[in-house]
Amino acid sequence: MIKIINTLNQNEDVQKEIDSLLNRSQLEFGEVNRLVEEIIKDIRDNKDKAVLEYTKKFDGIELKSMIVTEEEIEEAFSSCDPELIEALREARDNIWDYHSKQLNNSWIQNDKKGVMLGQIYNPVEKVGIYVPGGTAPYPSTVLMNAVPAKVAGVKEIIMVTPPSKDGKINKHILAAAKIAGVDKIFKVGGAQAIAALAFGTESIPKVYKIVGPGNIYVAIAKRIVYGYVDIDMIAGPSEILVIADETANPEYVAADMLSQAEHDTLASSILVTTCENLANKVKVELEKQTEKLSRKDIIEKSLKDFGAIIIAKDLDEAVNLSNEIAPEHLEVMVQNPFEMISQIKNAGAIFLGEYSPEPLGDYFAGPNHTLPTSSTAKFYSPLGVDDFVKKSSLIYYDRKALETNKNKIIKIAESEGLTAHANSIKVRFK
Amino acid sequence: MIKIINTLNQNEDVQKEIDSLLNRSQLEFGEVNRLVEEIIKDIRDNKDKAVLEYTKKFDGIELKSMIVTEEEIEEAFSSCDPELIEALREARDNIWDYHSKQLNNSWIQNDKKGVMLGQIYNPVEKVGIYVPGGTAPYPSTVLMNAVPAKVAGVKEIIMVTPPSKDGKINKHILAAAKIAGVDKIFKVGGAQAIAALAFGTESIPKVYKIVGPGNIYVAIAKRIVYGYVDIDMIAGPSEILVIADETANPEYVAADMLSQAEHDTLASSILVTTCENLANKVKVELEKQTEKLSRKDIIEKSLKDFGAIIIAKDLDEAVNLSNEIAPEHLEVMVQNPFEMISQIKNAGAIFLGEYSPEPLGDYFAGPNHTLPTSSTAKFYSPLGVDDFVKKSSLIYYDRKALETNKNKIIKIAESEGLTAHANSIKVRFK
Repeated sequence: MIKIINTLNQNEDVQKEIDSLLNRSQLEFGEVNRLVEEIIKDIRDNKDKAVLEYTKKFDGIELKSMIVTEEEIEEAFSSCDPELIEALREARDNIWDYHSKQLNNSWIQNDKKGVMLGQIYNPVEKVGIYVPGGTAPYPSTVLMNAVPAKVAGVKEIIMVTPPSKDGKINKHILAAAKIAGVDKIFKVGGAQAIAALAFGTESIPKVYKIVGPGNIYVAIAKRIVYGYVDIDMIAGPSEILVIADETANPEYVAADMLSQAEHDTLASSILVTTCENLANKVKVELEKQTEKLSRKDIIEKSLKDFGAIIIAKDLDEAVNLSNEIAPEHLEVMVQNPFEMISQIKNAGAIFLGEYSPEPLGDYFAGPNHTLPTSSTAKFYSPLGVDDFVKKSSLIYYDRKALETNKNKIIKIAESEGLTAHANSIKVRFK
Repeated sequence: MIKIINTLNQNEDVQKEIDSLLNRSQLEFGEVNRLVEEIIKDIRDNKDKAVLEYTKKFDGIELKSMIVTEEEIEEAFSSCDPELIEALREARDNIWDYHSKQLNNSWIQNDKKGVMLGQIYNPVEKVGIYVPGGTAPYPSTVLMNAVPAKVAGVKEIIMVTPPSKDGKINKHILAAAKIAGVDKIFKVGGAQAIAALAFGTESIPKVYKIVGPGNIYVAIAKRIVYGYVDIDMIAGPSEILVIADETANPEYVAADMLSQAEHDTLASSILVTTCENLANKVKVELEKQTEKLSRKDIIEKSLKDFGAIIIAKDLDEAVNLSNEIAPEHLEVMVQNPFEMISQIKNAGAIFLGEYSPEPLGDYFAGPNHTLPTSSTAKFYSPLGVDDFVKKSSLIYYDRKALETNKNKIIKIAESEGLTAHANSIKVRFK
């Protein structure tokens, strides 16, 4: 099933193998693109009417009203397993705690006489959160998207999620929305939901930023409305990379790789190890554990297509490879995991040691599980409070300070041929 | 020329007037889109060869080599006006100073026994900067884009800018690049430059993020490569909004509005004032000062199409209007400008008092002049160090901490139907 690549073997073209592992881009879908463009145009023109038609067409339900009522939320909440509610509440608290450490203060710089500069933080006022429906509803997604927005001070959090054929929303999703403090929930999914949030309809408020994962229609719609509103990122399939030495437990390594592989046949699970013996043991464990897992078929395909065990010369080579791959999740299972932090340049989330498995981060620890995929950790960050806050610069000069510097400003303005810019300084000192 | 809108006049549809002022979106250009898609595909397939062909076609010059040599840079630098060099150096120092205050430290959270969470900052490794060429080259753009990247610790800053027909680059642009510390400069512009930076060619390195303004081809190309690489924002035409009371000097207000209006016929200059007398005086001043300015034709068209003087009931209404418009540049010329900071929610840069005209910020004070336009200050921030830094989350639990929480994690995983996630916790405590 999974392939083993040995970088010490001269005949292996390691770079080519890695390139093929990473070749899972979701950015090119011409035909879907045209379809989504049409849906968006229709929603802009016909608002609620069009939204309801698409909901009938794609979700198979004719809704009278899209808003989820207080009663529906309470009913869902009270029918959930109380232990699950408790676990979600504690996860919410951990997420709140971690994200509140990301808050920055507005600041001023007052070190020059007559000059005050600064940076003012304000929350984005209205935010939309997309939550996928379907067969596997994820309450954790609701928490991970809504809590940072709450921490940032967003005034209005609008959640959209597709209804099932009976016009209902999964109870865990509604419970998580209540726990997270979502303000309004609408029964709408797909590209029509993204368009409704971006442009507003009679019932769905226009927001300024849209976050949350979704299928290819949702991803493409987010790309199209980007610029009209802000979006979080284009999420691709999930990835894990484990760096392990001879001290790692093969059973744990395999279990963690499988926890990614079960997400999606496009998910990628990679082990980079300095120990050939571990490589072989992990391979055996992967096969053994897969047999007992409910999503066996997905796992086997994902490991075959996008899984790999890479044997590296030493830990330096291992971490270099990892920086090149820039994984969404990076587990470091080596003797001294903390010592490697300074070498890790590109990774969404870093899990240190053998008791920090990736699902701990997916659900519970506090850091966000919305992470940059497909090598985009080279330039993107985990979702966080910064995504829901924006800055304004502040500039104050008094008369003396401006006068002292006026000739330099005029000089640059004139070098750019912008005489009205120069004039705006000159009129003040005629 | 400029229209006066009085919100106290019941017959005025103020909202409609404002909507029409803001209706300058650059996001819909189907035909240009197709052309740019073709160019990008060609560059991906044929790399340098295609880049050189487009440079011949669009810039009218057959280049042998695209890289700007050390000699070219030195020659340009030494032929510049020494006073301009000095002004640019001081601007660079101010920009450096302000942006270095935006740097965040990596941090850890260690308040629970056996648990360590954190957030690690790393600079984006390679960044591309687009600098427009043409008749009005802007050295300030080079500084405002390159200096924050340097402050962030970016290792490689690649600048691209279109050559003129003689194969040269404007000397001020090259001097600014030297002053800012740009690492490599290539003679290439348009969509072909964006594609080359996004995908790499034999001579132009692939980067992870592309910043800088450009024409419609550049803007559309940035939109298309977004996701493969990160981009700064989709820059629209420039805007200024001045909030002024009866204490404001009409001559200054008019001069500052004109400094925006000269940028572009699509630029928007708006005064919101509580004083009808000031409104009338500013109107007179605008006409008087325009007569003497070199870009008179641009200014007149811009003021007519997208300029306005709005009379507001009081300062509260004025600032509410401003928050709704979310201007790129906001000047506050009232008796106590500092007192208004807490009410301002959406603005790119805020200029306080009568000696802080917008060109001070464009060139010299230190805050960035790359600012969110077209109401996007509702969700975007000025360009800054954050744009060149990315974060990784850090998660460490010891055995005891994971064991204490294992049932809650398993509970959530199983509620989502992800048994391999639950298994990854379970195998550790068999």
